[in-house]
Amino acid sequence: MSKKERTAITPTREQDYPEWYQQVVKAADMAENSPVRGCMVIKPWGYGIWERIQRELDDRIKATGHDNAYFPLFIPLSFLEKEAAHVDGFAKECAVVTHHRLQEKDGKLIPSGELEEPLIVRPTSETIIGELFSKWVQSYRDLPLLINQWANVVRWEMRPRVFLRTAEFLWQEGHTVHVDEEDARKEVDVAVEMYRQLMEDILAMPVIIGEKTESERFPGAVSTTTLEAMMQDGKALQAGTSHYLGQNFAEASNIKFLGSDGELQHAHTTSWGVSTRLIGGMIMCHGDDDGLRVPPRAAPKHIVLLPVIPKAEHEESVLAYVEQLATELRKLSFAGSPVVVHVDKRDLRGGEKSWQWVKKGIPVRVEVGPRDIENDSVMLFRRDEGPKDRHQLKRDELLEQIPQILQGIQDTYFAQAKAYQEARTRSDISSLEEFKAYFADAKSSTESGFVRAPWCGDESATEAILADLKVTIRCLPREQGNASGNCVLTGKPATVEALFAKAY
Amino acid sequence: MSKKERTAITPTREQDYPEWYQQVVKAADMAENSPVRGCMVIKPWGYGIWERIQRELDDRIKATGHDNAYFPLFIPLSFLEKEAAHVDGFAKECAVVTHHRLQEKDGKLIPSGELEEPLIVRPTSETIIGELFSKWVQSYRDLPLLINQWANVVRWEMRPRVFLRTAEFLWQEGHTVHVDEEDARKEVDVAVEMYRQLMEDILAMPVIIGEKTESERFPGAVSTTTLEAMMQDGKALQAGTSHYLGQNFAEASNIKFLGSDGELQHAHTTSWGVSTRLIGGMIMCHGDDDGLRVPPRAAPKHIVLLPVIPKAEHEESVLAYVEQLATELRKLSFAGSPVVVHVDKRDLRGGEKSWQWVKKGIPVRVEVGPRDIENDSVMLFRRDEGPKDRHQLKRDELLEQIPQILQGIQDTYFAQAKAYQEARTRSDISSLEEFKAYFADAKSSTESGFVRAPWCGDESATEAILADLKVTIRCLPREQGNASGNCVLTGKPATVEALFAKAY
Repeated sequence: MSKKERTAITPTREQDYPEWYQQVVKAADMAENSPVRGCMVIKPWGYGIWERIQRELDDRIKATGHDNAYFPLFIPLSFLEKEAAHVDGFAKECAVVTHHRLQEKDGKLIPSGELEEPLIVRPTSETIIGELFSKWVQSYRDLPLLINQWANVVRWEMRPRVFLRTAEFLWQEGHTVHVDEEDARKEVDVAVEMYRQLMEDILAMPVIIGEKTESERFPGAVSTTTLEAMMQDGKALQAGTSHYLGQNFAEASNIKFLGSDGELQHAHTTSWGVSTRLIGGMIMCHGDDDGLRVPPRAAPKHIVLLPVIPKAEHEESVLAYVEQLATELRKLSFAGSPVVVHVDKRDLRGGEKSWQWVKKGIPVRVEVGPRDIENDSVMLFRRDEGPKDRHQLKRDELLEQIPQILQGIQDTYFAQAKAYQEARTRSDISSLEEFKAYFADAKSSTESGFVRAPWCGDESATEAILADLKVTIRCLPREQGNASGNCVLTGKPATVEALFAKAY
Repeated sequence: MSKKERTAITPTREQDYPEWYQQVVKAADMAENSPVRGCMVIKPWGYGIWERIQRELDDRIKATGHDNAYFPLFIPLSFLEKEAAHVDGFAKECAVVTHHRLQEKDGKLIPSGELEEPLIVRPTSETIIGELFSKWVQSYRDLPLLINQWANVVRWEMRPRVFLRTAEFLWQEGHTVHVDEEDARKEVDVAVEMYRQLMEDILAMPVIIGEKTESERFPGAVSTTTLEAMMQDGKALQAGTSHYLGQNFAEASNIKFLGSDGELQHAHTTSWGVSTRLIGGMIMCHGDDDGLRVPPRAAPKHIVLLPVIPKAEHEESVLAYVEQLATELRKLSFAGSPVVVHVDKRDLRGGEKSWQWVKKGIPVRVEVGPRDIENDSVMLFRRDEGPKDRHQLKRDELLEQIPQILQGIQDTYFAQAKAYQEARTRSDISSLEEFKAYFADAKSSTESGFVRAPWCGDESATEAILADLKVTIRCLPREQGNASGNCVLTGKPATVEALFAKAY
């Protein structure tokens, strides 16, 4: 066992937050970089968390009337060009397919069979889906059209970082078509509310919801609603977005319908997405200096049972007892699904095994040895407590209390994240000097955070100040605080409260 | 309503089987071709079937100890080259990424940022996964390593056909590493048994399991076990394969481990996959001249409730009654999961609505109108019967009988498919003349089928005969029938019974 002052992860969050992040991903065996530049490999523990996210979100997507479908990986170059802002936004990060076979030449394989028109590996699918929707939609009776896709997308990243920023990532993208702006904007909010539930109730990650300013909008969108979470270094992570696309993409893709009034008109569309980036957010929101902490509702496994076998003669009886206990635990349910129990029978030193699970962030560890069996008890460790804090429980107490213990851990993580988000959000900064001092001086890993302050709404007048500080307007929060008085940046009369932060 | 002699699909299977297939896909609104050559769009009804396949197979994959993970979409060209037979097998059908951005030139966007090494969009992932496994595997304690991936893959197809043969398709690929041949071959069989259950128990599609001959093996495999299904035109569909790769890929990717004997050695690997092709198989196995027939265990929805509203004044009471009935039906379970019920409230002519569901192949349709409500009864239609065969059931009888009705339809589809598979398999052909006559003369959509016959095992001596007839050896069935006597093709002494057929 490590000593009290030692941590399982080196460096600590305070010492070097970015490196701490990489070390947590490694220690929890969640993902790794691949030999393909910028593309990650998601290992079983990381992928298991993604599967939990998928299941929770997919249930909500279906319950709100959306159907899943699947569209092509490739987009013809000419499609991308149809929406001007859109192609500007993605042209610099596209993987381009130019050939459809390989051919030997001078003993080497080279690309061959050049395509007449290059294909882009989808960075997002508005343009290809729009093309198909233009055929599916004829009349107002076909609307709303509510479609979702689970897929991989590629955006060539120059500075990749596992989960947070990778050339290939996994996501879902909702694409919907509506008769008018009102119906489309309602849909934007349906998506935002699903995302809020996923982030807050499942990932225990509190978010601030608001509108993006023009420069931060999705390329081609009329408005972008974002959900912003605070990481433990005080930076913001854009955790998900939902876009009202107006008639921009409907015009680009010619999505028209015959209205109930007999008029042929362009539809209003939306799109919305969250990705494997959420896993990076979860790590940075909850991880500590001993590694990952997975909220129980996002955990691939809730409980690991660790048989303690001091001598070979104990093996059979301890394993039998543990398997029986696992069977009974699996009959319990937590948050509407069966409790997931893993029995770790590997032939490894107990301390090492236990620490592996601490680093993976499994919510509950339960040790059972011969003496526990004699006492009809077990030793329980909660990941929301110190690695050595233990609870001796009677076997029956364990079975009775497990669902509440898991919910307790879930609640603790949310409360802790909410507390640091609130503690590190300043609403009292009123001058440019204070604003600059706050972002320039604060040591980012422990002191800086969010600033909520009145803003004049003039992006061109404020972009230089913000760029110097490497700060962005994360959103104009839906729940407005103080928007009166003067703009914190320009001193001009303010029109709205903005949320400022450094961001991932 | 259509007249008795008319069918919902034109042409019928007998008139033009390939065109019938396309029309069923269209009539059931399952998928369509996209503007990207060879890439299909899977629409909600088709994708819903894929989701059922995924859920059923994924549960089995996990229950047999495999973990899901995710590997890069792109494979460096040099990786593909590591296994000679493998690259030969895939070089002619690779999508090649050569650039990573777009740039404007003379007012046009062109590929820019040429990659130092081209990337292949994965046609299958042995080489990239092998590279990673070589780092994950160090000792015999790390084995077996049992990994599965759900992903999209691309194989450039010159003659694409929706579901059956598309440039991009969805699949799962299992990749496992073992200490020795025995353990690896056991794994091959574990996968085959999962596939058999999926195909026979879920898709109601009987299969013949056997070994591929050398020329039909996966490029780079030591042996390939296949599951072959018969379509209603008598042709074979390779529905899934499981490969023992020997040490070929372990050598190519340098997957070595320190054995319990202290020796460093190459591991033995397997891979196995099924794809969206299964949906094409399901269509061709069960569809009839009125459209698709989905086996209940593979159906996204089991029952559609069709409110019959003769006059506007009935609307409220009928809809309330139907919603209440839906709620009660949803509490029932079929094959371990809740019964999935859809209430179709669309404002459409009853006949048209009903026929849409016939063509989609939903297992059960239930009509409820004012008179039914008065009688406390409903009108039930089963897709395994004629479109006009109806059953008047009391409401309670419906609730009581639905699980058995669904199982009955499931069993009927399997029994029908098994019956035509058996009826159209000839085991009595003993001369080359008969063999030629059978495959050359039979009208493929109604008469031809499988031939099981003794074979000499000499591929080079028989390939020309088979190529002329466009027949292949589908497999050497695991359950051998008559392998004695002389080879049906060469007259030489036979060594094995082979299964011959035309194939997709």
